[in-house]
Amino acid sequence: MKPRKPSPKKPRYNEGEVLSPWRESLHSIIFGAETRPAKIFDLVLIISIVCSVLSVMLGSVSTLHERFAQWFFYSEWFFTLLFTVEYALRLISVRRPWLYCRSFFGIVDFLSIIPTYLNFLFPGIKYMLIVRVLRLLRVFRILKLSEYLSEAQILMQALSQSCHKILVFLYTVCTLVIVFGSLMYVVEGSEAGFTSIPKSVYWAIVTLTTVGYGDIAPQTPLGQIIASTIMIMGYGIIAVPTGIYSAELLKVGKMEEINNQACPDCGETGHDYDASFCKYCGHPLDSD
Amino acid sequence: MKPRKPSPKKPRYNEGEVLSPWRESLHSIIFGAETRPAKIFDLVLIISIVCSVLSVMLGSVSTLHERFAQWFFYSEWFFTLLFTVEYALRLISVRRPWLYCRSFFGIVDFLSIIPTYLNFLFPGIKYMLIVRVLRLLRVFRILKLSEYLSEAQILMQALSQSCHKILVFLYTVCTLVIVFGSLMYVVEGSEAGFTSIPKSVYWAIVTLTTVGYGDIAPQTPLGQIIASTIMIMGYGIIAVPTGIYSAELLKVGKMEEINNQACPDCGETGHDYDASFCKYCGHPLDSD
Amino acid sequence: MKPRKPSPKKPRYNEGEVLSPWRESLHSIIFGAETRPAKIFDLVLIISIVCSVLSVMLGSVSTLHERFAQWFFYSEWFFTLLFTVEYALRLISVRRPWLYCRSFFGIVDFLSIIPTYLNFLFPGIKYMLIVRVLRLLRVFRILKLSEYLSEAQILMQALSQSCHKILVFLYTVCTLVIVFGSLMYVVEGSEAGFTSIPKSVYWAIVTLTTVGYGDIAPQTPLGQIIASTIMIMGYGIIAVPTGIYSAELLKVGKMEEINNQACPDCGETGHDYDASFCKYCGHPLDSD
Amino acid sequence: MKPRKPSPKKPRYNEGEVLSPWRESLHSIIFGAETRPAKIFDLVLIISIVCSVLSVMLGSVSTLHERFAQWFFYSEWFFTLLFTVEYALRLISVRRPWLYCRSFFGIVDFLSIIPTYLNFLFPGIKYMLIVRVLRLLRVFRILKLSEYLSEAQILMQALSQSCHKILVFLYTVCTLVIVFGSLMYVVEGSEAGFTSIPKSVYWAIVTLTTVGYGDIAPQTPLGQIIASTIMIMGYGIIAVPTGIYSAELLKVGKMEEINNQACPDCGETGHDYDASFCKYCGHPLDSD
Repeated sequence: MKPRKPSPKKPRYNEGEVLSPWRESLHSIIFGAETRPAKIFDLVLIISIVCSVLSVMLGSVSTLHERFAQWFFYSEWFFTLLFTVEYALRLISVRRPWLYCRSFFGIVDFLSIIPTYLNFLFPGIKYMLIVRVLRLLRVFRILKLSEYLSEAQILMQALSQSCHKILVFLYTVCTLVIVFGSLMYVVEGSEAGFTSIPKSVYWAIVTLTTVGYGDIAPQTPLGQIIASTIMIMGYGIIAVPTGIYSAELLKVGKMEEINNQACPDCGETGHDYDASFCKYCGHPLDSD
Repeated sequence: MKPRKPSPKKPRYNEGEVLSPWRESLHSIIFGAETRPAKIFDLVLIISIVCSVLSVMLGSVSTLHERFAQWFFYSEWFFTLLFTVEYALRLISVRRPWLYCRSFFGIVDFLSIIPTYLNFLFPGIKYMLIVRVLRLLRVFRILKLSEYLSEAQILMQALSQSCHKILVFLYTVCTLVIVFGSLMYVVEGSEAGFTSIPKSVYWAIVTLTTVGYGDIAPQTPLGQIIASTIMIMGYGIIAVPTGIYSAELLKVGKMEEINNQACPDCGETGHDYDASFCKYCGHPLDSD
Repeated sequence: MKPRKPSPKKPRYNEGEVLSPWRESLHSIIFGAETRPAKIFDLVLIISIVCSVLSVMLGSVSTLHERFAQWFFYSEWFFTLLFTVEYALRLISVRRPWLYCRSFFGIVDFLSIIPTYLNFLFPGIKYMLIVRVLRLLRVFRILKLSEYLSEAQILMQALSQSCHKILVFLYTVCTLVIVFGSLMYVVEGSEAGFTSIPKSVYWAIVTLTTVGYGDIAPQTPLGQIIASTIMIMGYGIIAVPTGIYSAELLKVGKMEEINNQACPDCGETGHDYDASFCKYCGHPLDSD
Repeated sequence: MKPRKPSPKKPRYNEGEVLSPWRESLHSIIFGAETRPAKIFDLVLIISIVCSVLSVMLGSVSTLHERFAQWFFYSEWFFTLLFTVEYALRLISVRRPWLYCRSFFGIVDFLSIIPTYLNFLFPGIKYMLIVRVLRLLRVFRILKLSEYLSEAQILMQALSQSCHKILVFLYTVCTLVIVFGSLMYVVEGSEAGFTSIPKSVYWAIVTLTTVGYGDIAPQTPLGQIIASTIMIMGYGIIAVPTGIYSAELLKVGKMEEINNQACPDCGETGHDYDASFCKYCGHPLDSD
């Protein structure tokens, strides 16, 4: 919840209206993760989310839809009403409802329920229902509260620190793919499926990333030599993002591990997280 | 062998009935790995397992089955009887047969022999015979006893320590695959093979993991742009599990490297290679 | 700009003619990156490059070309004239125009504009136009000036330091691919598409790099066994370039980390993070 | 050259007959790499090897073979005679010809020339000619003598040290592939191409290694769910060999870098390769 600019009169923690006790306890159940009711709430919510997404997915299978149309209709409304109630409870139990609405998860919560109502009002917009699979994103909120937090944080921190390197890598990949795609457009011509540069670039992406559908494949010897070059390059340069991320992850992991404390006697740092004595001079370290 | 709650009267090591000498030596041959007969037993067992699985595999090739039906029938019974004898010997030579039966390898051993008997009694359940390939799992028991133990342990330890990170990664992959699959279902429609969301999700998995069968492939320009995004993402985020596992393996490997010297005073290990003093009690370490 | 052998009479920094003030400021706008006009110039240039390449790409799509032929014609000349003006300005504002012309980016700049003029003079050479996508390379010049410089340098340094290892790896891959390709040519024969050794080698590259188009696929059992071997090898030896690059990147990254403290006596850097004495002259380092 | 058990009378270096001066200098040209003639010899040899293999490869293309049959015939004999002369010179210039013949490279040299002669004597055995591509292996001998030696050695050392871990990994992959292949044989049946267990296992390898030809692809929903599992597993467990090899390469690289020398004063080790003074006590290190 991104705080609005606080008014100077109230202390920051109490900003917004003060919640009545029952709303306070509702808040701890819905937004918290420590108490037993909060854990049960999270579990029920995860199961509901997974079931509702499964129902959306299976509802798109035409054979199933024909046989169980009624069932899918009811399940759609059941989950929509359930998430509507949950959304209302979140709005009630939160101190600043408008801030919650504009937050990332507030928008996701809203998108989880609105397509069914819209489809009820305007029956034409069938594809809007797909938005419902975004409900899956809501599980990440529960993840945020749990013991997975630190793990996810390490992964994200390493990703954001290697962000610049990855952008340089991505631009290089794009350039390679466009240059080689254009080359193949000239070399192969439209018989083999290379009908335009965008299509050739699409083929180059399919090849460089080692996906290789095979719907478009070079036919001429020269085209196959160029394709081989792209493949070996794609096989080799996958080392670059992997190397970047491994190195960054090791660095982040090491920072976590190493005791930030300096020895009070010799001032040396770099002790292990479980060290009680300085490894260079033997002076006791403060136990933290 | 998971020990049952020991009765307080007997020392723990001797719990269960005392084995007679010939059963004791049978035990050391079958369950041990140090003596020469034990090694020969292991070798014969590995060869039998590999041959029996090869026989099951080749027996499913219809041209071979027609010509050598007799041969496959005999080999099936030969290996089944062999493994039955082995199973009986294991039951005899072990102190607590029931515990062995319920252990992981006990169940695998049982599953190795039972399908042939069941097929004899109820000839209809042909596909039950496939269970016989699980015999391959039995080789891991022999691995457990050998010099590969520590290697396998390092690999498993790194895997189990990076377990949480990998689960976070897997959930992210699942979300990506379902969201992009649904998007492609809307964008491509059923002409290109995206007939339902589950099928589109299957296609998204095929693409993200860079497998790329090509049985379903996007046809519209917009679909190909989305597909390119998925491919580049799949090409990039393979860095994540690799980075996680490399970092973890390095950490586990480093632990192996450093714990050679125990503190002469408190006996603690795990000091860095450049430590001069025990990090737990401050006693000087021997410089080696 | 690679300096020519300087004449001994002038100081090196002032070699070439002295620029008049307006050319000096033009130089700082076009070749610099710090001032506000220089940043605006770079931004406009990047947008022009991307738009012109998009126009080239879309112009190759026949349906679009038919409908918007006029539009593509005008955009081609618009961007060509724009880049021609830019090229002229670069020639004017630089001290030694001839050196600039022969530099890598000078050639790329020239190749960005020449195909349109050539096509105007000799209308036959249609495919020459493809050269225009090389304009994408020009973005790397702007990259060179920006905050991405150090990131790109680290990636390149690690690449150039692991260059020998990667060449050994590439030669091994080539040998494997040729040997296995020849083997498959003998084993499979021309029914399955293995019509010649070069084609079999192409197939082996497609398989080893895990691209797997499926346009050529082994049909005989022996061929499928050999193919399986190549696949598992390809799956395994991707570890080699990844390992090489990860290790090199870690080493380069570590060098960045450690050289913060210079020896107060001899000024040498590159000490380890836990060093107490200068490793070159033995003078104590400040503990930080 | 693997030395035979030396007779006790002669010093080891001079074992075998003493070479006459011209054979000594021939030896240094053919087997050495330092002198200028040796370098020219190596260069000519590499070019000949590459040209001869290219000639073998192109000779298998039927259109080229028809037009240039004469040319391929002459080039075949030219290279064969060239390598025969080289083989004879190696036999002459080496102290113990028989040992050379039985060494790895002696056998490769022999296999490089014998197919052409055999084909001349027994014209039927056409496919024997394929053996000639093994000539490519001979380039590794020249590699062994050059500056690439240490690079290749580091790669090989890391590979051999991670050998046990990789074997455990490979056995696990084999088990997975056989178990999942058998499962798919039962689930999919022969309509979708899963006609036997070996074929299903082949499909499982194609899928797990992310090659994905698409000649066999699951059709039933259950089959596609299992296939998705295999793909995600394959996508994930590629982290295992990569992690193993990266960790091992880092370890090997670190050993090379670190000065093995212990400080003469405090006995500490782990100094950098360019350190002149102990980083812990400031005592000068012996310069080696």
